[in-house]
Amino acid sequence: METLLDSIRIPQDLRKLKVQQLQQVADQLREYIIQVIASHPGHLGASLGTVELTVALHYVFNTPYDRIVWDVGHQAYGHKILTGRKDRFASIRCKGGLSGFPCMDESEYDAFGTGHSSTSISAALGMAVASKLKGETDRQHIAVIGDGAMTGGMAFEGLNNAGVSKSNILVILNDNGMSIDASSGALSKYFTRMAASRSYNHIKNSVWDIMGGDKHYPNDPKRFISKITGAFKSLISTRTGNLFEAMNFRYFGPIDGHDLPTLVAVLKDLKTILGPKLLHIVTTKGKGLKPAEQSPILYHAPGRFDSQTGELISKGINLSLAPKYQDVFGKTIIELARSNEKIIGITPAMPTGCSLNMMMKKMPQRVFDVGIAEQHAVTFSAGLAAEGMVPFCNIYSSFMQRAYDQVIHDVALQHLPVVFCLDRAGLVGEDGATHHGAFDLAYFRPIPNLVISAPMNERELRNLMYTAQLPGRKAPFLIRYPRGRGVTPRWKTPLEAMEIGKGYCLCQGSGTAIVSIGHIGNNALKAFDLIRGTGKEANFGLYNMVFLKPLDEALLHEIFQKYERIITLEDGVRQGGLGSAVCEFAAANHYTRTLVCLGLPDKFIAHGTVAELQKECGIDPEGIARCLIDEAWRG
Amino acid sequence: METLLDSIRIPQDLRKLKVQQLQQVADQLREYIIQVIASHPGHLGASLGTVELTVALHYVFNTPYDRIVWDVGHQAYGHKILTGRKDRFASIRCKGGLSGFPCMDESEYDAFGTGHSSTSISAALGMAVASKLKGETDRQHIAVIGDGAMTGGMAFEGLNNAGVSKSNILVILNDNGMSIDASSGALSKYFTRMAASRSYNHIKNSVWDIMGGDKHYPNDPKRFISKITGAFKSLISTRTGNLFEAMNFRYFGPIDGHDLPTLVAVLKDLKTILGPKLLHIVTTKGKGLKPAEQSPILYHAPGRFDSQTGELISKGINLSLAPKYQDVFGKTIIELARSNEKIIGITPAMPTGCSLNMMMKKMPQRVFDVGIAEQHAVTFSAGLAAEGMVPFCNIYSSFMQRAYDQVIHDVALQHLPVVFCLDRAGLVGEDGATHHGAFDLAYFRPIPNLVISAPMNERELRNLMYTAQLPGRKAPFLIRYPRGRGVTPRWKTPLEAMEIGKGYCLCQGSGTAIVSIGHIGNNALKAFDLIRGTGKEANFGLYNMVFLKPLDEALLHEIFQKYERIITLEDGVRQGGLGSAVCEFAAANHYTRTLVCLGLPDKFIAHGTVAELQKECGIDPEGIARCLIDEAWRG
Repeated sequence: METLLDSIRIPQDLRKLKVQQLQQVADQLREYIIQVIASHPGHLGASLGTVELTVALHYVFNTPYDRIVWDVGHQAYGHKILTGRKDRFASIRCKGGLSGFPCMDESEYDAFGTGHSSTSISAALGMAVASKLKGETDRQHIAVIGDGAMTGGMAFEGLNNAGVSKSNILVILNDNGMSIDASSGALSKYFTRMAASRSYNHIKNSVWDIMGGDKHYPNDPKRFISKITGAFKSLISTRTGNLFEAMNFRYFGPIDGHDLPTLVAVLKDLKTILGPKLLHIVTTKGKGLKPAEQSPILYHAPGRFDSQTGELISKGINLSLAPKYQDVFGKTIIELARSNEKIIGITPAMPTGCSLNMMMKKMPQRVFDVGIAEQHAVTFSAGLAAEGMVPFCNIYSSFMQRAYDQVIHDVALQHLPVVFCLDRAGLVGEDGATHHGAFDLAYFRPIPNLVISAPMNERELRNLMYTAQLPGRKAPFLIRYPRGRGVTPRWKTPLEAMEIGKGYCLCQGSGTAIVSIGHIGNNALKAFDLIRGTGKEANFGLYNMVFLKPLDEALLHEIFQKYERIITLEDGVRQGGLGSAVCEFAAANHYTRTLVCLGLPDKFIAHGTVAELQKECGIDPEGIARCLIDEAWRG
Repeated sequence: METLLDSIRIPQDLRKLKVQQLQQVADQLREYIIQVIASHPGHLGASLGTVELTVALHYVFNTPYDRIVWDVGHQAYGHKILTGRKDRFASIRCKGGLSGFPCMDESEYDAFGTGHSSTSISAALGMAVASKLKGETDRQHIAVIGDGAMTGGMAFEGLNNAGVSKSNILVILNDNGMSIDASSGALSKYFTRMAASRSYNHIKNSVWDIMGGDKHYPNDPKRFISKITGAFKSLISTRTGNLFEAMNFRYFGPIDGHDLPTLVAVLKDLKTILGPKLLHIVTTKGKGLKPAEQSPILYHAPGRFDSQTGELISKGINLSLAPKYQDVFGKTIIELARSNEKIIGITPAMPTGCSLNMMMKKMPQRVFDVGIAEQHAVTFSAGLAAEGMVPFCNIYSSFMQRAYDQVIHDVALQHLPVVFCLDRAGLVGEDGATHHGAFDLAYFRPIPNLVISAPMNERELRNLMYTAQLPGRKAPFLIRYPRGRGVTPRWKTPLEAMEIGKGYCLCQGSGTAIVSIGHIGNNALKAFDLIRGTGKEANFGLYNMVFLKPLDEALLHEIFQKYERIITLEDGVRQGGLGSAVCEFAAANHYTRTLVCLGLPDKFIAHGTVAELQKECGIDPEGIARCLIDEAWRG
């Protein structure tokens, strides 16, 4: 039987419905998201929280002519379903399928691609200004941004500029009190105070009264606006003041973001108000699935679950599996912090994702979740280091791009011994192009004073962490490691210092050698296994550099003197990283060996499983094996 | 005759004085700054504005135990003079002399190095938290930040985190209504409203009354604090609300930042207040030198001037000089914008520095000064481009490090045709390590979809700009060019399209060829001149790549087939840029020519003249000549 939701191919279909029918659409939309994501893992909680908002926005606004920018973007599943992608929704985050984030190439309804946080206001303002210059006075530009994303400094830069712009921009603050973890910082407390200043039911009723029911435009819009503005304004406790009005925004709210009739009524009226305006809605992350409402962190991206009960489908504890790198980090930092009281943990809104939550529980005074604020995370760490602390600042590799200047200007230039742990380095899989940690080796190698390392396994991660916190160090120390599991189920090895800038030989060989860095080196070992018994076997060498910087030139001399052909292997872009460094070394030392650089090609890599993407890039075991046994080079 | 200022070797000496003597110190300090900077060019206006604040801070606080972080840092000249560097002050910004910015290596009084904007709150908070963890409850941590720097998102990230910290941090908002140009954005208007809400004289008097004169601590500090807080609070118009209290800061002010007794009294009392607090002071940029007060933009860094009258010592207009690259940009964009109505200019607080102020005057609707907000500048440009505009986003090379993620995530990934003009690329000279545009070629080369170019002269800058704005382009286009003058006095050549990714030969030769990119190629021509007539002359080749990406591989094949030895030349770091790209090319194509890479070494380069620094790096004409005639490679 065709549901109401089925009948909506594009938002135009939605707009034909009566307001009274919208909740039914919302319910079916929520149900559909739960059904599909239960068996096709993806982000869940955020999109469940924005179901009513999504329906209301597409109902009220003339999308795609009107532009909606979904900040971060993982709350846009409902948006995808309502904009012609329902049938393909089960392909989300799969190779060749829908992206987990809005993507301009995917749909004209995705006004702007997102993935990283806090970009929406700036992007929507750019669009709004363009419209204004083109004379499109009727066009609306909407940024939907969570309270977590609002802590990113870029959001403030956007507000500060939008506040003096006379263009049509509506910022919707989707306040659910959460990033992936609970929101942190003064702003979060401030929003809570604002939201608590009146109960939503009262607000709902008074708004409803002002509107005089469902719709009908007032005869005198100006007077009407001043009325609605005043009414909303009275709902805000003067005790808390108003941050957004300081930024020259007209502020409306807070209202219940799950109350569809109110949302529709308010949005309709906001359409008629010119200039920058902000609507504060309060929503529940995971709305409609009890366990998700109760455990929003767990259900942010829960993996498979029972679509009826919400119960997670546990794979059981498999002791034969190696641990996740993030957990090795999370447990090792506690171990280190117990004997080195100067160690401090810092994370920008990723305590669960990077497993720093473990230390948070044991040593709450020594861990700082600074919210979505990578720039602050780095310079705050620099300040700690300047006073003798040993900060371990854990930032996902692709998010570290946000704090590039701070690493250069505040840390490396001042040779402060901050330890940077870059989780999610290399290909991350299903999160796709915005989230691959593809560039870190390349963008950090040119920076003076840095130590750049990547462990091949759990033991090396532990020993690099141990080495980085030893006293007397005078340089920032980067350790980058991938998403997912390592290779050693019995990972808890004794801690040992490593010599900085020293690589080592894993397999002596002759003819061809692989020179690799980081976890991807395990694929070289697998490639050797694949070749074994094929009749193509040869005595291949394998070297693990461990450090990109300082580069182990002594080891490279040994390699270049011994082998005829050298293959570099890394899970980052080929330009600028290990391959480049080895090319530079070869040129500087007049080596004329054959050199092949394996790594990511010069294009953005979309989503898929890590294995699929490694294959696409030729750094899967098969690809490496092919490269090893390629006889063409001898020709 | 020894002045009072002369008697102050370290701040401890200052603290022995009576409050009544401080204005005399301030007057002499101001006079000394003017005297020295009149003949030793540097930043002027900002430091003149903070003279009283500097005296008050070092008088009240126990520096260097108490920590002062001067945001951006060019307002810290008075601080340098009072902290043991008076005798060396005339060496400021000279090679081997004092840095123009605070620098931890230079003095223990420089608690944290600055240069880029908006870092001070994060750094000071890191220090404050470290102190708290170490149990140093008496230690004070002060961030002095201008209203311009406050628009940088990072400052908000810092406030948001400091607001929930219980550590001792005092933020002093130095509100002079200026960045280098006039401050922009909603925040700036907000500060103006706050400052205008009462006149300073009234404030001064009421503060004075509360204090009960100069000093003497109250018997009941808690009650006293609530009194002072309340009194200050009443001075703030409730109409404007209070942004900082929303961020959980205790707000004090605004007060007159040139009123020393009040500053001293307020700072003394703020010392006794625990937790995060903000003092809003209003100052005049250029205070004490009339022309500087009247023309703060001109006197931000005025060059030589008459120390009595302030009159600028003009070098006269010399028609034989080539124009500054920034002016070629500023004039050419107007020319282009006249025929292409989609062109928009964007600058983060540098309209004068990048000469976009020229277009601002002619087409005010089409230029956006977004304040110190590089991240927003880039994504705002992306939003404009998404709607069909052609944004020219002009950002200094080293400041572009702030928006690295935005270029990747919001522009390159979405193949939006934003034109990025990176002024101040390469060595900038006297501003030193924080400001050299040393890394741009290296950090942008790994990013897919980008076009990266660098003109060798004015004509190429114009033609690259022309090419970048042609219709149908689907990729971001970067043009990087240096601070200072080009090479062509008659620069206004006809606009011509350039073939993207195509370099060319300047001199055919044999044996050795130089492959260069950008303005630094002119040093190669000068090197040829130096060699001519020395008996060492040879037939050297010279090639200008123009584009780092896409790389002209056809031209490189030609070069590698023709020459035995290839020298790459760039004014960026050697790791990752042109040299790297050519090494990779050679390895991929099995060329075994001798390859030498000239560029910046793997260390931070301090301040000095551009010529001195080029010499230090071996990319001055002499250094290049030495490399050319080096016979060792033949051995």
